Amino acid sequence: MDNLLDFSSRLQNDDQRSLNTMLEITKFAIPEIIFGRGSINRAGQCALRHGAKKVFLVSDSGIEQAGWVQRLMEILEAEGIDWIYYPRVTPNPRDFEVEQGAEFYLKNGADVIMAIGGGSVMDTAKGIAIIASNGGVIRDYEGANRVQRPLPPMIFLTTTAGSGSDISQFCIITDVKRAVKMSIITRSQVPNIAIIDPLILRTKSKKLITLSAIDALAHAIEAYLSRIASPFTMPQSLKAIDLIFRNLTPAVQTGSLDSLEKLSIASINASMAFSNAGLGAEHALAHSLGGQFDMSHGVVHPILLTTVMRYNLESSLSRMADIGRVILDRKLGSERETALVGIEKLEEFFASFDVSLKLSAIVEDSERQHLESLCKMAVNDACNLTNPRPAAWQDLLAICEEVW
Amino acid sequence: MDNLLDFSSRLQNDDQRSLNTMLEITKFAIPEIIFGRGSINRAGQCALRHGAKKVFLVSDSGIEQAGWVQRLMEILEAEGIDWIYYPRVTPNPRDFEVEQGAEFYLKNGADVIMAIGGGSVMDTAKGIAIIASNGGVIRDYEGANRVQRPLPPMIFLTTTAGSGSDISQFCIITDVKRAVKMSIITRSQVPNIAIIDPLILRTKSKKLITLSAIDALAHAIEAYLSRIASPFTMPQSLKAIDLIFRNLTPAVQTGSLDSLEKLSIASINASMAFSNAGLGAEHALAHSLGGQFDMSHGVVHPILLTTVMRYNLESSLSRMADIGRVILDRKLGSERETALVGIEKLEEFFASFDVSLKLSAIVEDSERQHLESLCKMAVNDACNLTNPRPAAWQDLLAICEEVW
Repeated sequence: MDNLLDFSSRLQNDDQRSLNTMLEITKFAIPEIIFGRGSINRAGQCALRHGAKKVFLVSDSGIEQAGWVQRLMEILEAEGIDWIYYPRVTPNPRDFEVEQGAEFYLKNGADVIMAIGGGSVMDTAKGIAIIASNGGVIRDYEGANRVQRPLPPMIFLTTTAGSGSDISQFCIITDVKRAVKMSIITRSQVPNIAIIDPLILRTKSKKLITLSAIDALAHAIEAYLSRIASPFTMPQSLKAIDLIFRNLTPAVQTGSLDSLEKLSIASINASMAFSNAGLGAEHALAHSLGGQFDMSHGVVHPILLTTVMRYNLESSLSRMADIGRVILDRKLGSERETALVGIEKLEEFFASFDVSLKLSAIVEDSERQHLESLCKMAVNDACNLTNPRPAAWQDLLAICEEVW
Repeated sequence: MDNLLDFSSRLQNDDQRSLNTMLEITKFAIPEIIFGRGSINRAGQCALRHGAKKVFLVSDSGIEQAGWVQRLMEILEAEGIDWIYYPRVTPNPRDFEVEQGAEFYLKNGADVIMAIGGGSVMDTAKGIAIIASNGGVIRDYEGANRVQRPLPPMIFLTTTAGSGSDISQFCIITDVKRAVKMSIITRSQVPNIAIIDPLILRTKSKKLITLSAIDALAHAIEAYLSRIASPFTMPQSLKAIDLIFRNLTPAVQTGSLDSLEKLSIASINASMAFSNAGLGAEHALAHSLGGQFDMSHGVVHPILLTTVMRYNLESSLSRMADIGRVILDRKLGSERETALVGIEKLEEFFASFDVSLKLSAIVEDSERQHLESLCKMAVNDACNLTNPRPAAWQDLLAICEEVW
């Protein structure tokens, strides 16, 4: 995403020569990954490896009630590691909470930050890590690459397999005064270690399984088509698409740990890809729609994704055919045919789940008038910059009207 | 490779139940990667990001004469970073050299280690990092996971794109008294950042281009078939195979920067895979042969690899077909057919380069008697443990006789 932000600032400078130079450099940063059933038990050794004497443990009341915080404390104690627990995480973490957390961290002389939870918990931990090591307030770091000094070692355990915050260089914190969600983006926010234990994930509802897998699928597809996709992100995208296509249906039907585990792997692959390659116009629209109508990504993707893919087809024929080949598990007569039949198959796939396929199903008729201003916002979303085909607000509006 | 070593110790304990449990946990650790023409210019910012005030710069006389060390010093100075230069690297670095280097590091109060060079330079830097932060002598750390305390930040720039030391968790140092090469293996040896600048790589000879690409191809194939290959290593293997098949011929024929760059990407993909998945019987044999007859890996692979693949065919039919599909760029009627025709195509590929295809071409007739003892050594090589089909020394000897 640094790539993306470099990219964005170069585009804004309208300096095509610099842009070409810049595109020749690509970056790929991910945490060390420890994946598998029971991998939570490695948390203590991981902390020791990063020199932990006293771990700063971040979580929330839901995870605590499920018993995972207690479990982690016992694992740390068994390795002779001291800990201090910071439980005050709320959904959509706010600036002052992060700043209070940093104060608490410094006062207690902790040396490694460990978070167990969903996106809010992990983003809170990232925010605390920034302030504790770089000082100031969190607003100082809004945007890309504003963090100068190294963060304390971070070890994250995800409980949702959706947000990708345990893999990515992103952190979202609400600025209360301005009432905006700040994006803080820097490679130093990639945690040192992500521990993904499928046994923690198996309590998800069918609805949540479907929506988070579709979210990962959209990440994988848009990252594959991104203008800054690289040979390091592209194999990860294709692997994620393959795994989700083969495993979402059995996961929903049987809830088997085996299928859930494969979806969790797919989400990791997709996060590796999008964290480093960025996304596209579909996510730009999803962000605007989600902000306005308070809906999650997973809800919007089945409505928008294939229409945005058709919009991008001509500019990405060969890559769209790669996606088609993975979906269909074979090549057809031409790239165009493989691409198009792949997109049709993707539409059938979405239709086989209990999800909305039209915008009118989730947005009131009376709200339709807001689409134009939404699309005008969406063209400025960072994701729109890496879309393979330039998209003006009129193009985005045409897409929204088509799927209405 | 930690996986591999866990695996190895479990196998030695002959505890099948623990083995099964262990196999459910997989790890994937790679450095942050910055790839592209001119990426050397990012070295200063990378050092700052890791808190550098004084960089410990490791290289050798060849790289120095080529001007790269001077270039790096200027880049650091431009960012206001002090440096101290440690030039005393020799091929196949020895224990006392590493220990002297650590003394020099500590005496000079450096805080980040930067290495520019091939495998010897980077392995020397890793050895210095271990002693400087963990004390003792390098022999104390032989084997897997013997390093307890975190290492200083390491930023590596490879000049060969062959060894993979800039990506991997391996370090090879010679124990002078025992006259053996020690393998030191630990995740803490994965550098923080690997900067791969194809402009540094473009001075390689055709022979070196061919041999290092074939080495990377063998890494990719054996890692894909490994018993501990994971969904994180497998896409990287297939990408490497694809890139080498499509780009080695043009790279040798035209020497174009574009093809060389793609081979360099392939080597990174292959290193990500083998560092985390381990290798197989072909590398076990290559290590023994290489040790005895002082030949490089790249020379042995075209002789052994396809015969070892045929030996493994029945135990890995589906994965061997995946490899065939990438090589042929299509599936044939059955998995077996795709796999076998893929192996034939690989033989044709090797035969199209100026390389030996029979063992008798590189080993004297009078040395043939040593093959049996070589194979008895090779079965105990760590690589043999992750081969998809168990291989006794008699099996390895039959392979050697077949390719004689």
